[in-house]
Amino acid sequence: MASPHYLPPLRQVAVCGGTHGNEMSGVYLAKHWLRDPSELQRSTFHATVFMSNPRAVEKCVRYIGRDLNRMFTADILNSKGSDADVYEVQRAQEINQIFGPKGSCQAYDFMFDLHNTTANMGSCLIVKSEHSLLPMHMCSYIQKHYTVSPCPIFVYLLPGEESNGVALELGPQPQGVVRADLLAQMRSIVACGLDFIELFNKGTLFPAFEIEAYKLVGRMDYPRYPDGEISAVIHPNLQDKDFQPLKPGDPIFQTLSGDDILYEGDDITYPVFINEAAYYEKKCAFIMTEKHTSSQPALQREL
Amino acid sequence: MASPHYLPPLRQVAVCGGTHGNEMSGVYLAKHWLRDPSELQRSTFHATVFMSNPRAVEKCVRYIGRDLNRMFTADILNSKGSDADVYEVQRAQEINQIFGPKGSCQAYDFMFDLHNTTANMGSCLIVKSEHSLLPMHMCSYIQKHYTVSPCPIFVYLLPGEESNGVALELGPQPQGVVRADLLAQMRSIVACGLDFIELFNKGTLFPAFEIEAYKLVGRMDYPRYPDGEISAVIHPNLQDKDFQPLKPGDPIFQTLSGDDILYEGDDITYPVFINEAAYYEKKCAFIMTEKHTSSQPALQREL
Repeated sequence: MASPHYLPPLRQVAVCGGTHGNEMSGVYLAKHWLRDPSELQRSTFHATVFMSNPRAVEKCVRYIGRDLNRMFTADILNSKGSDADVYEVQRAQEINQIFGPKGSCQAYDFMFDLHNTTANMGSCLIVKSEHSLLPMHMCSYIQKHYTVSPCPIFVYLLPGEESNGVALELGPQPQGVVRADLLAQMRSIVACGLDFIELFNKGTLFPAFEIEAYKLVGRMDYPRYPDGEISAVIHPNLQDKDFQPLKPGDPIFQTLSGDDILYEGDDITYPVFINEAAYYEKKCAFIMTEKHTSSQPALQREL
Repeated sequence: MASPHYLPPLRQVAVCGGTHGNEMSGVYLAKHWLRDPSELQRSTFHATVFMSNPRAVEKCVRYIGRDLNRMFTADILNSKGSDADVYEVQRAQEINQIFGPKGSCQAYDFMFDLHNTTANMGSCLIVKSEHSLLPMHMCSYIQKHYTVSPCPIFVYLLPGEESNGVALELGPQPQGVVRADLLAQMRSIVACGLDFIELFNKGTLFPAFEIEAYKLVGRMDYPRYPDGEISAVIHPNLQDKDFQPLKPGDPIFQTLSGDDILYEGDDITYPVFINEAAYYEKKCAFIMTEKHTSSQPALQREL
């Protein structure tokens, strides 16, 4: 058996809600944990809760000026230009000062970022890369120990972004609504992730494994009229079918005249974020992924 | 048999979407019908489509300054005070000029107002009053002829408001999302309502009937901490149970500490708009109704 990969223990863990101010599972959990963080604590690390975008939470909108979730690039974090007037640019720089700076030795070791989607994505786990060993082990641990619903993994590499963390993306839940069922799911998954960190810190050996993940390969815009208006809606056969195979020739949109528009790709794809409210303005009807199995080496805490 | 109640034919019918700019079934139908209104036309009346709150539609928000749906009172329609700066006050006055003025002889005869809710209300029909004879006959006709889903009737009398019309309130649908299934349902129900008007205008006798409706009796706020923050969420047993009986002692909320909060009313109620996103700011977790059966006299067009 190959020797495990060794990583340092995690001492400082951050849990953030309200990165998007109208994604309410994380907003309500963060508000609750800010009043009483006791359930997040374990013996081997310190967990800190914060509300990422408090002004957006107050107004119950995704963001005030720009999408905070796209602000954690080196360029923006170091920006002193005209961008610096935008609330989310300031807030990203503040968060980076408190929990970073990125790449520095006092930076937080791990981040849970809590999101919801209007898409039927269940209890989706989002990681930056399949090569993020500790997050991939955490995902595998959650898949084994949180058995209320499947927890598919979405690998979503935004150029220029780095993170040692896992984002939870639970849906479907409307913006501005908190559902008790999804709140309980998110809470249990965070607890499961914290349990994993505790075991890792205590020296548990996590064996090698193979794991399936859905990797971003592209985005599909809505069909449009020449004036730019959307001319067709997500096809009823595709609605709510996140993570299910979409084959060339399957219907993806339906016009208001009743015509079907078919998927013209060459290969099977696995759509996610189908009919996500926040992606209309990003010109994205759904994200296309490919299913990929990777081998992950064993993991243990550094001695 | 008692003689029917006689009412004048309807010559001018208005269909409006986007009264709330992020309720997308009506927004998409209105946009489509503004391009091609042919499917709304019948032989005996003229149907006009309009977008109630185009600026809110453009920004995909419920409203810009104030909720347009609360602006059609005599006070506001005649306001020339400081209110007049608010976009929705101006827009309500414009709409009243074009389609009214309310109570005048050139006013439109009937209005369909297209809404969505994040609550599980199915294909709900909203009328001002059980005494609105023509709307009640239309609802009965829709219940008989649109059989894809039940169409419960909600009677929602806002003091100071008048309307000869029916509002459609279809859900659940997240704000900012258009689902093909709800779009098709709304479209079919509007068509069914227009067919009813056509039959009425042609002199069809609609017999007397008894009909069940859910009448507003009160509103329930969320439990709150002393600082005003919401302290509990809709109980999982109540979520999605719109129009189902809620008995004294049934759980209605769940705190984040896991405690249940029970319904303390004296009588069975039928909650609607359970967990509607737009009602958090209105301090309304759900609306309480009572089920009531009324007798409606026969109806025929005036000779």
